[in-house]
Amino acid sequence: MENDRYYGIDVGGTSVKIGLFQGTRLLDKWSVPTDTSNGGDHILRDIVASLPGPAAGAALAVPGAVLPDGTVNRCVNLGWGICRPSDEFTAMSGIPCRVLNDANAAALAEQRLGGGKGFESILFVALGTGVGAGVVLDGKIRNGARGAAGELGHLCLDPGDTAAACTCGHYGCVEQYCSATGIVRLAAQAGMPGLNCKQIVDGAAAGSDRLEAVVDAACDALGRGIAGACAIIDPEAVVLGGGVSQAGEYFRLKVQAAFDRYAFHACLGTKIFLATLGSDAGLTGAALYAMD
Amino acid sequence: MENDRYYGIDVGGTSVKIGLFQGTRLLDKWSVPTDTSNGGDHILRDIVASLPGPAAGAALAVPGAVLPDGTVNRCVNLGWGICRPSDEFTAMSGIPCRVLNDANAAALAEQRLGGGKGFESILFVALGTGVGAGVVLDGKIRNGARGAAGELGHLCLDPGDTAAACTCGHYGCVEQYCSATGIVRLAAQAGMPGLNCKQIVDGAAAGSDRLEAVVDAACDALGRGIAGACAIIDPEAVVLGGGVSQAGEYFRLKVQAAFDRYAFHACLGTKIFLATLGSDAGLTGAALYAMD
Repeated sequence: MENDRYYGIDVGGTSVKIGLFQGTRLLDKWSVPTDTSNGGDHILRDIVASLPGPAAGAALAVPGAVLPDGTVNRCVNLGWGICRPSDEFTAMSGIPCRVLNDANAAALAEQRLGGGKGFESILFVALGTGVGAGVVLDGKIRNGARGAAGELGHLCLDPGDTAAACTCGHYGCVEQYCSATGIVRLAAQAGMPGLNCKQIVDGAAAGSDRLEAVVDAACDALGRGIAGACAIIDPEAVVLGGGVSQAGEYFRLKVQAAFDRYAFHACLGTKIFLATLGSDAGLTGAALYAMD
Repeated sequence: MENDRYYGIDVGGTSVKIGLFQGTRLLDKWSVPTDTSNGGDHILRDIVASLPGPAAGAALAVPGAVLPDGTVNRCVNLGWGICRPSDEFTAMSGIPCRVLNDANAAALAEQRLGGGKGFESILFVALGTGVGAGVVLDGKIRNGARGAAGELGHLCLDPGDTAAACTCGHYGCVEQYCSATGIVRLAAQAGMPGLNCKQIVDGAAAGSDRLEAVVDAACDALGRGIAGACAIIDPEAVVLGGGVSQAGEYFRLKVQAAFDRYAFHACLGTKIFLATLGSDAGLTGAALYAMD
């Protein structure tokens, strides 16, 4: 019964997005608020209480590192420390459950069904408040030996302590230049404080030279970071997702140009695409991971 | 007949090293000079003429990028342009043949039989005249979509044109700091020209503060580069090979310390090992690739 239905569950810091899938078909989706009180103790119970019925499997996409055995190594935004949410989920629901990093889930969805469709290996980069990324090789997501694969946001571009301090404790990480937060910081540094990321990118696209210089600096850093990642894994294609990438073709062309400036010559020809699944990427990728 | 024998062939710019293997057992090895005249036209013929008999398979490890279909995208040191040496080899010898990048071959050998034995996923870094690298994941070498996986030597650490110009056309690549050539350059820059890499590292280990500062700068750059690569693929372990790594534990500890300074926190605990197969790594890895 229900042996072809899967739940894809994207556990975010504000809300949990849940999709019910039959194969790659999204039958229904809904969300529940994320209750981070008591160390995020209610989150799984609230998710399970919202499920309409049994299923063949489920996967949780979480904002933190996931070890190969399914142990989650802290999700600060959820209040979770080191834990095994898939075991707890299964105990409560009776549904087999896997767990993976949320950017990795989005990467898998974009590779199979979104901006990277048709490619077996992609680098996916999600530009939001931070910079997440995921590596898909031969159609499989790479989680890494310590759950840290695809941490492009923490590739160091400038180690000097005059560079921007990153939340990770280092300086000059990719995330400090091309996340929404990073772009806002670059604009403030250039004498334009108080603007949000959308205002900056829209203003640049509308013709402001000063704002365009900010966006160019962000895209230059991102292109250099992507070039570095491609020198290691050499994927068939790169896919840009997350809120910042909604600036669309204007933004994509700048990132492609920066990549082309920095890429190792054998990597030239690697094309950068825009993601197409939007905020459904996480729950979709989780469902695909559950089915794998 | 001979259906369990394989040739592993490491095609270098000066000599070709050839090993005859039965499983992982090296039965015999020899070398032939590399004749780079006429665009390297005689290289394959000279190799085939040296073979003692038939075999179940062979693989060529070459100093250049190898596309997924076996096309070699230039080997400057051999005089080769775009070519398909495995097809030619098979036509001349009757032996089925594969081709892969030489650093990738060494990576595979070190993962299966050398410094990375016991790990399924490693980053291998060969520090020689240049910096080669290879990525092994789940026991398989990753060649990349354009043959450029594992080009850690061309990860950019400092893009400014005041940084050292690299042979690849960019500035500030990892290779410019921690290859033998890079270390010699750093020493010259510090006012100590005319020393070779071994003299520099030996002098540092023997207590020269000025030379130690050079080696520290090289290891700092390498540790930062490895930290960047680990943020993308998060391997179980890292293995250092090539001539420069023969400085041994003195050098390894400095690279480990630099890695620990720059690594993303989830990657901490990744250990750096020394390679153990020396100059046999390439031919051994080629034989393993032929058997796969």
